[in-house]
Amino acid sequence: MKKLALLIFLLFPIITQAQDYMQPYLTLEDATRISNAAEAKSKAEGWNMVIVIMDAGGHIISLRKMDGVQIGSIDVAIAKAKSAVYFKRPTKVFEDAMKAEGGTRIVTLPNAVAIEGGLPIFKDGTIIGSIGISGASSAQDGTVASFAVAAY
Amino acid sequence: MKKLALLIFLLFPIITQAQDYMQPYLTLEDATRISNAAEAKSKAEGWNMVIVIMDAGGHIISLRKMDGVQIGSIDVAIAKAKSAVYFKRPTKVFEDAMKAEGGTRIVTLPNAVAIEGGLPIFKDGTIIGSIGISGASSAQDGTVASFAVAAY
Amino acid sequence: MKKLALLIFLLFPIITQAQDYMQPYLTLEDATRISNAAEAKSKAEGWNMVIVIMDAGGHIISLRKMDGVQIGSIDVAIAKAKSAVYFKRPTKVFEDAMKAEGGTRIVTLPNAVAIEGGLPIFKDGTIIGSIGISGASSAQDGTVASFAVAAY
Amino acid sequence: MKKLALLIFLLFPIITQAQDYMQPYLTLEDATRISNAAEAKSKAEGWNMVIVIMDAGGHIISLRKMDGVQIGSIDVAIAKAKSAVYFKRPTKVFEDAMKAEGGTRIVTLPNAVAIEGGLPIFKDGTIIGSIGISGASSAQDGTVASFAVAAY
Repeated sequence: MKKLALLIFLLFPIITQAQDYMQPYLTLEDATRISNAAEAKSKAEGWNMVIVIMDAGGHIISLRKMDGVQIGSIDVAIAKAKSAVYFKRPTKVFEDAMKAEGGTRIVTLPNAVAIEGGLPIFKDGTIIGSIGISGASSAQDGTVASFAVAAY
Repeated sequence: MKKLALLIFLLFPIITQAQDYMQPYLTLEDATRISNAAEAKSKAEGWNMVIVIMDAGGHIISLRKMDGVQIGSIDVAIAKAKSAVYFKRPTKVFEDAMKAEGGTRIVTLPNAVAIEGGLPIFKDGTIIGSIGISGASSAQDGTVASFAVAAY
Repeated sequence: MKKLALLIFLLFPIITQAQDYMQPYLTLEDATRISNAAEAKSKAEGWNMVIVIMDAGGHIISLRKMDGVQIGSIDVAIAKAKSAVYFKRPTKVFEDAMKAEGGTRIVTLPNAVAIEGGLPIFKDGTIIGSIGISGASSAQDGTVASFAVAAY
Repeated sequence: MKKLALLIFLLFPIITQAQDYMQPYLTLEDATRISNAAEAKSKAEGWNMVIVIMDAGGHIISLRKMDGVQIGSIDVAIAKAKSAVYFKRPTKVFEDAMKAEGGTRIVTLPNAVAIEGGLPIFKDGTIIGSIGISGASSAQDGTVASFAVAAY
């Protein structure tokens, strides 16, 4: 038991330090699984979508554009994913805020998108990336995004 | 028989017209198959790559970033794919031209990238898209791009 | 006494001229003191902030991002500081104006940000720079900005 | 000893998983220590510098502009830091490559800067950020950058 206690004691500082200076991140395997879920859900609903997954730095890990989607949705999905990871919150939060205050000051907030379909992805309370969906109505985009993040 | 001949006669102009105004295009299924080949080749060689597939309009259909690749390779792979489809030629053509003329005038050519790793994708003589690879040396990027396009 | 009067008379135009063509400016030492005050206030309140100090030309003298702040706050704090020094007024003035007129015309004003947290910094009536704060609610950002400028 | 072996066995998968999906990151405290070293070195040499520290995603954690530095050095230092973290290599590598090949193809590489003064920062083999220095000659910028990274 003494040895056990000693081992725990010796390991503890290392683990503590790791927690202080280490953070989780999203792999391509994770991003592919999330994207597959988004694509499957879109097909089941009969929608065509652009699906974007970003890492915690706002860089694209995965993008796929289903056939027939308007090309404008590529930049929209990228912008939604960026907004979600830059502000650690769903783009719908900005959409609701603009409706609630009847105002538009959020328009002057750099990189903010106020249209549903962007969601941050967290692991153990730390942001590790985001998803951006565009192609159908914003509510439908949001439905696919939520379904996909649940698959992570 | 007369009726059959009449029908063919009536249909003929329509079919001719359709052939004149149709062009092949790259589907997400095609892009996924090409990307899978690129990723498989990269893994076999022990390289980490960003793989970008664009359509004939220079819009991203598929992007995947393998774990551990420098983030700068995302913009580089996008730029290579864009150069390849914008100019209907491999980015290596510009690289070779710059070396041959010992000059820099290509630097002023909008959207041109003079680094190997970008290839146009043709079908029946018509450009339908491109691939951009970045992550290893430019020669290795080019090897993966060629391997992947052969899988189309 | 006559000589003294003559000397003053001769020097006076020179001094006047010098006063006409000089302006105060913000040093890195000033910016560091203001940033330290902002960071101390943020920690005391339990908030994580991005703190930006600009000079009179709208160029960043100092930026610091506290751990854990959403990355979107970097661009937001820069934009607030820029708006404050470009228009010599707090960003809250634009926010209030948009609310008061229920309108959106300020959205079309280049470089204007209509969200509290940006303040100009004056010395003897001359603008010498600005501060931009982002990371918590806009009201909290404004609290930190005001506290910090008072430390100048 | 059996208990010890069991404990190690139980801990092993957790630690392995953590290594797979966890990565180190740069804190503001780290960035401040590195910046302080850069500023002290600059002062000792009689140089004025802009000092930029970025995180692994290419986002600014810390920026300070010493008094009297040309304003153009702000964007230069940011660009050098971005190049270093985007390509996981010193900007001098691009500078040397351009000299060696007598060519300019690197000019077409998005986000690449071919001027000494940008260095990546690694921890245990993983990139966690970068430094960008500008204000004196590029060789002097590089001297300060190297000195500062050694202080991490």
